[in-house]
Amino acid sequence: MNLSRREFLGASTALPLAAQISIANGTPAWLAPYREPAARLIGSALADTFAWERIAELTDTFGPRLSGSPALEHAIGWAVRTMQQDGLEHVRAEPVMVPRWVRGVESLDTVTPIPTRVAMLGLGNSVGTPPEGIEGDLLIVTSFEDLESHADDAAGRIVLFDVPFTDYATTVTYRTSGPSRAAAAGAVACLVRSVALPGLRTPHTGMLKYDAGAPRIPAAAIALEDALRFERMQRRGARVRLRLRMGAQVLPDIESANVVGEWSGREKPDEIVVLGAHLDSWDVGAGAIDDGGGAIVMWEAVRLMRALDLRPRRTVRTVLFTNEENGLRGGVGYRDRHRDALPRHVLMLESDSGVFRPMGFGFSGSEAERATVRTIATLLGGIEATRIGPAGGGADIEPSTDAARIPAMSLDVDPSKYFVYHHSEADTVDKLDPIDVARCVAAVAVMAYVVADLPERLGEQS
Amino acid sequence: MNLSRREFLGASTALPLAAQISIANGTPAWLAPYREPAARLIGSALADTFAWERIAELTDTFGPRLSGSPALEHAIGWAVRTMQQDGLEHVRAEPVMVPRWVRGVESLDTVTPIPTRVAMLGLGNSVGTPPEGIEGDLLIVTSFEDLESHADDAAGRIVLFDVPFTDYATTVTYRTSGPSRAAAAGAVACLVRSVALPGLRTPHTGMLKYDAGAPRIPAAAIALEDALRFERMQRRGARVRLRLRMGAQVLPDIESANVVGEWSGREKPDEIVVLGAHLDSWDVGAGAIDDGGGAIVMWEAVRLMRALDLRPRRTVRTVLFTNEENGLRGGVGYRDRHRDALPRHVLMLESDSGVFRPMGFGFSGSEAERATVRTIATLLGGIEATRIGPAGGGADIEPSTDAARIPAMSLDVDPSKYFVYHHSEADTVDKLDPIDVARCVAAVAVMAYVVADLPERLGEQS
Repeated sequence: MNLSRREFLGASTALPLAAQISIANGTPAWLAPYREPAARLIGSALADTFAWERIAELTDTFGPRLSGSPALEHAIGWAVRTMQQDGLEHVRAEPVMVPRWVRGVESLDTVTPIPTRVAMLGLGNSVGTPPEGIEGDLLIVTSFEDLESHADDAAGRIVLFDVPFTDYATTVTYRTSGPSRAAAAGAVACLVRSVALPGLRTPHTGMLKYDAGAPRIPAAAIALEDALRFERMQRRGARVRLRLRMGAQVLPDIESANVVGEWSGREKPDEIVVLGAHLDSWDVGAGAIDDGGGAIVMWEAVRLMRALDLRPRRTVRTVLFTNEENGLRGGVGYRDRHRDALPRHVLMLESDSGVFRPMGFGFSGSEAERATVRTIATLLGGIEATRIGPAGGGADIEPSTDAARIPAMSLDVDPSKYFVYHHSEADTVDKLDPIDVARCVAAVAVMAYVVADLPERLGEQS
Repeated sequence: MNLSRREFLGASTALPLAAQISIANGTPAWLAPYREPAARLIGSALADTFAWERIAELTDTFGPRLSGSPALEHAIGWAVRTMQQDGLEHVRAEPVMVPRWVRGVESLDTVTPIPTRVAMLGLGNSVGTPPEGIEGDLLIVTSFEDLESHADDAAGRIVLFDVPFTDYATTVTYRTSGPSRAAAAGAVACLVRSVALPGLRTPHTGMLKYDAGAPRIPAAAIALEDALRFERMQRRGARVRLRLRMGAQVLPDIESANVVGEWSGREKPDEIVVLGAHLDSWDVGAGAIDDGGGAIVMWEAVRLMRALDLRPRRTVRTVLFTNEENGLRGGVGYRDRHRDALPRHVLMLESDSGVFRPMGFGFSGSEAERATVRTIATLLGGIEATRIGPAGGGADIEPSTDAARIPAMSLDVDPSKYFVYHHSEADTVDKLDPIDVARCVAAVAVMAYVVADLPERLGEQS
């Protein structure tokens, strides 16, 4: 279904237009009262570039916001103050202890054939090297199986997992598990070809996970260009010897916080729709795409309801999680702190794929809940964001949605650019389009408002 | 004119095909004998990816090759040895003293509002800062006029020339002259928005030129993203204070060399066609586009003539210049060493715009010479490289062509990508297409062979 903008904005007729459209489209009668508030939310979201400007303010002012960094704590303080100024209710920072990985000075150089620098970024959670670095001949492998078949060659070497990016889930296993797999085979350090689309010699960082059973060796990402270079050198029979230097270290855990702000329900304030995203980021770029944009969009959806004086039956709560990138302590902390209230969480919606042009939502829940969500999404025809995908969720909300079988939703957007910028220096606000960001706000605001306002709980519509 | 590949490759007919085509197209009779060797040169160049592989070998093995670096001297040694193995004649390194600017450790950080790193590259020839860096509030100007109108505000500040890229000649003046203009107004350091097309937070370095009349202040390039960020912060009224740290220094001049190899003329060996490009590069990226590709293409054109046993009447000489980027000592050194022979230089051709898809040549010379060159270029119809532009030349050949009024030519290529990669870490061989590189070799080989072989000197054809 596609409604024209004119219909959305409510031309007046003898019978209420909303009722006419419902009848014409065969949508359930319960949807009709939501056409007018949906139109107001969409119209207001698209009326200016406020949301984009706020992403810019966040990311320009505080830059990257790694867990444990002063920048993240400054950003958390700003978010609390600004939510309060916006008039959100029960605004607070809910403390969580987070890990504190610090990158330090780092470099990768060829030693043989001659000294040249290689673009790199150490992986999050990696141990450092001794100050003089770790030197080893390069062994290139293209899969875990390839590593097994060259296991005799790995001892004392620096192993590169040279795996082309297909999709994130497939390729990222080499970043998370590769270092311990290489260590188990005797490698002294590990490199991974960046889990990303082609860039401009752009390395992309991200988390590794050490296995208990293998030595902890330092690990870093290199850019596509250098992986291709090493492949060519290997084909030419050139010996490539490298020196990796990383000052990375893990400091003691430190206090951080999830930022929470609400718009309380007028009838059932204890029932909650959560709009979540994470405020922390990696320590490169400015964390605009991952995930400052998501954080601002979720917050904006609530601000917009308040600004339009649209107070739904249930509470809408925005949660700006901490420590998504390297620990998930924010998501786990939310679950633990709100465990008793989780059964009264009607829906949790997360945005963590960048706030590019919205296409709809991924959704995980019952078929009845899905049917309702699908119906609500028809209100987003004017901004072409009606698609309801087969699965939804997000890293921050998953601890809670898993614990209490809460319907889980993700904002789905145009996926074509995310992995160009993801976890790199290029993750900055100029890559986001202000109109697309406004569309994301509109989509989230309409979905959240209607779910929060339904007379019966989500999925109980007849 | 466009000849099909089949015609180029010489289908046999009763009358020689070349003569038929000349008559059909109204081209002068002198061109006819060159159709067959041109077809062989083009066919051989396009038969494999040898040229691209050699650019890869050069840039993979030696990496960036700044004047005064061991890498450049290693590359020069390799080029001499490899040219000799190729069977080029009179291969030698002609010594030139070059300047030695060394970047050192460098960084740019915001101090206010909070500490964040800014992507940057110091400009070539810049002085360094004291070890603790130079701190100053940011002043953004958009032109020299804008600087004049804010001259009262510049004292003690770090001035950013925030000038959108239009074309290189226009925009580069802010990189070359901006630092001294800012210093004259009292600035303590200077930043320039990179002279480049948009990238992925990619700073682009390049040369500055200090005026004798102003203090020498340190200067660096920042990426588009950070220039836009600072603009937004200024619009929001935020104070931006920066700290620039640069360990740059100028060490004493050091010996380098132009690499020269020849294919001697069979009748007039003292008359010379020079095919030039520069082997040095900036100290970032791998100098594949600027200008390792050009160097290999020029050399390849000569290697191909030798491999096909096509020895023209005059000598074809490839010159791989040193120190184009930060001194032009290679070009000046060639002129001075060969001053007496310059009048016998029939043509000098330089490639320094990347070896992307060739479109033809720029040419500066007499109208008679241009008419001959235009006729020769018709032989390149099959690879669509027939265009002869209004002006040609290059930084390395200009000292010579200016000194002796030598016809000057540049290889003209698709210009759309050059300023994405130029002087950045992203200047690597994977950005070049092997077929386009082969086309460049073909175009240069045909043009050089015919000019070198003409019975009368270039421009004296009737």
